[in-house]
Amino acid sequence: MKQSLLFAKTTREITHDEISLNAQLLIRAGFISKIMAGVYALSPLGLKVLKKIEDIIRSEINAIGGQEVLMPALQPQTNWEKTKRWNTYDGLIKLGLNEEKNLVLGPTHEEIIAPWAKKFIFSYQDLPRYVYQFQNKFRGEKRAKSGLLRGREFIMKDLYSFHESEKDLDQYYDKVAEAYIRIFRKMGLEEKTYFTYASGGTFSQYSHEFQTLTPAGEDIIYICDKCRVAVNREIIEDQKHRCPKCGNQELREEKAVETGNIFKLGTNYSRPFDLNFVNQKGIKKPVIMGCYGIGLQRLMGTIVEIYNDERGILWPKKVAPFDLHLISLNKNQETEKTYATLSQEFDVLYDDRDLSIGEKLAEADLIGLPLRLIVSDRSLEAGGYELKKREEKESQIIGVEDLMETIGKIIR
Amino acid sequence: MKQSLLFAKTTREITHDEISLNAQLLIRAGFISKIMAGVYALSPLGLKVLKKIEDIIRSEINAIGGQEVLMPALQPQTNWEKTKRWNTYDGLIKLGLNEEKNLVLGPTHEEIIAPWAKKFIFSYQDLPRYVYQFQNKFRGEKRAKSGLLRGREFIMKDLYSFHESEKDLDQYYDKVAEAYIRIFRKMGLEEKTYFTYASGGTFSQYSHEFQTLTPAGEDIIYICDKCRVAVNREIIEDQKHRCPKCGNQELREEKAVETGNIFKLGTNYSRPFDLNFVNQKGIKKPVIMGCYGIGLQRLMGTIVEIYNDERGILWPKKVAPFDLHLISLNKNQETEKTYATLSQEFDVLYDDRDLSIGEKLAEADLIGLPLRLIVSDRSLEAGGYELKKREEKESQIIGVEDLMETIGKIIR
Repeated sequence: MKQSLLFAKTTREITHDEISLNAQLLIRAGFISKIMAGVYALSPLGLKVLKKIEDIIRSEINAIGGQEVLMPALQPQTNWEKTKRWNTYDGLIKLGLNEEKNLVLGPTHEEIIAPWAKKFIFSYQDLPRYVYQFQNKFRGEKRAKSGLLRGREFIMKDLYSFHESEKDLDQYYDKVAEAYIRIFRKMGLEEKTYFTYASGGTFSQYSHEFQTLTPAGEDIIYICDKCRVAVNREIIEDQKHRCPKCGNQELREEKAVETGNIFKLGTNYSRPFDLNFVNQKGIKKPVIMGCYGIGLQRLMGTIVEIYNDERGILWPKKVAPFDLHLISLNKNQETEKTYATLSQEFDVLYDDRDLSIGEKLAEADLIGLPLRLIVSDRSLEAGGYELKKREEKESQIIGVEDLMETIGKIIR
Repeated sequence: MKQSLLFAKTTREITHDEISLNAQLLIRAGFISKIMAGVYALSPLGLKVLKKIEDIIRSEINAIGGQEVLMPALQPQTNWEKTKRWNTYDGLIKLGLNEEKNLVLGPTHEEIIAPWAKKFIFSYQDLPRYVYQFQNKFRGEKRAKSGLLRGREFIMKDLYSFHESEKDLDQYYDKVAEAYIRIFRKMGLEEKTYFTYASGGTFSQYSHEFQTLTPAGEDIIYICDKCRVAVNREIIEDQKHRCPKCGNQELREEKAVETGNIFKLGTNYSRPFDLNFVNQKGIKKPVIMGCYGIGLQRLMGTIVEIYNDERGILWPKKVAPFDLHLISLNKNQETEKTYATLSQEFDVLYDDRDLSIGEKLAEADLIGLPLRLIVSDRSLEAGGYELKKREEKESQIIGVEDLMETIGKIIR
């Protein structure tokens, strides 16, 4: 894509109330725009990152048998009364088509998926089932000051699983945990992400959160460095400040953001909706459920909180909006050809604008693509193109004949 | 995909208030489920169709320079007051995070895109720009009795264009019209779709709708068979029942559904938001805008209204959820192998369930994939597999060695 045509531009203007680093960087670099507190629009650059995150998650959830669906944002009050959450769910946004508020703008979808599944699940032969979606969630967050880390409207991958036994749920729960680890690894978050013990509700002793360390996080977790797990604030007192795995009492306190969660719902949602099945002995039983969430904008914000320096963002390869940034210095004809060649194999952002080299390089650093390629008199005299990784200081000269192979090796 | 694992199933149960043919067929065939009037969930089959429609539209809009973005559903009241639509837009859903209703659940996005574009458009060098999204729209429709043809929540492709002159808008407007025709052609709707003259608002004499003929349509159009265009009900009186192109007065009245629209907004939205640019003479001018919409669920419903028979749906190839339906008759081991081979090249729905042949064939017809392939003793004795197109009565026997090529020729 030619940068001269890009809809959104880098900007210096940040609204006064935007205090979070992730939103500041993403707004300045032209990835997002603030519509109101906790509500952002995604520009072409921002949407490309979100779609890459979505594709990574989709491929891992498909690999563990997930079937993608799409449920609506509008949900009837009656469903939320059945689960007794109409008056108790924190930040539930209620609305109506007329004066009466008899709808919910879904913050989650247990109230839709459970009665829907009831139409198709009758016997043990219909189990297990794994159903997920990428869908817009709405939450009436009181504070929405953390940029993409806590939005009022955001896309979530929410997966729901249906089982005939707790044992089957347990096995799938572990599978999802492993899929989540692969997801975080692909996005460059594995090192800073901890499998964290949280409250399990009525059905199981623990649920689990994936907490990613960042000073911008609103959560506090307590890390056991021996087991490489953590305990969240909610249950640390009950745990008597011990690691649930090894009993270690030397836990390290850190700030973190919850980037994923997995939860054994048990029969909490199947019972209110009479979601039952007939088991192999012919006995009617309630279906056992699990739910598993990942907020996509929050992941994007977390990546930015972790991968940045004083000059801008440093996108991990697999979520970068483009593979490389091609920059022309008064060598447009030469660069146009290079752009055409590179575009056959790579996704290229080509800065074809009439700006100074200083401005172009500053913007390239702010946007933060993994690779920068400069075509200039100097580079051509030196025998080729000047290639630099975003995280390195020094560039290298690459000959024309080695260009595709060299870039390919770095990108893949 | 093995049908035994599919989340949604065919069903005979239709809610009493569901009177539309498209929703009845789609619910019975397991593509959608009704959550409330005008609000549907998409099952794995339904979402696959929607994604194919989305991909067709995306590729055509990208081809005319569209840049994809994602704007939020939540929109501030202040923006809607600036355009004076807060109290006048029909079916606008208002809500608030607390008691006060100071938000809109977006039925369209002029109120977001215009102030957003103001951040990036300053001079003629920043024009033209073409920005679109696939995004969930909300409309407080009073009657929502036409299934997917009139939903209260649905995904729309909305494209907005920004120009320095009316001439430039006119040229792009025609380009979008051509892209729309290619979109309808790919979905098998071209023959029944008419370029229809509609009211142009304050800026131009006409806007245009794409109206697709179906008895289920809620609109009436007046067709000129000479020019192959139509006039909508809104302006037929002003037109004195004449074709706007040739003056022909013998117009044919038909029922239709509006499957797309294109509209010259002019400065209706740039003026309220001070969206201006400096032209080549250094003079500040308001940006000229156009907007272009296609509702995805409505397209899906329209396809079903047109492509069905007494046994079920007949999906056009390019929007079918799978390429072919593989049906096993007590030949599961043989069929498993065929399923594996076919899956390397095609997207196969494999009915591996323990049901009678009658039930399987009835379900296959209801679901309506373009091709059906039966593996049975009879077919194997005859030398191969029994292949039938959904729209044809007779099947043909295809030898194992010709299978991939024959199917490939039909599918592509």
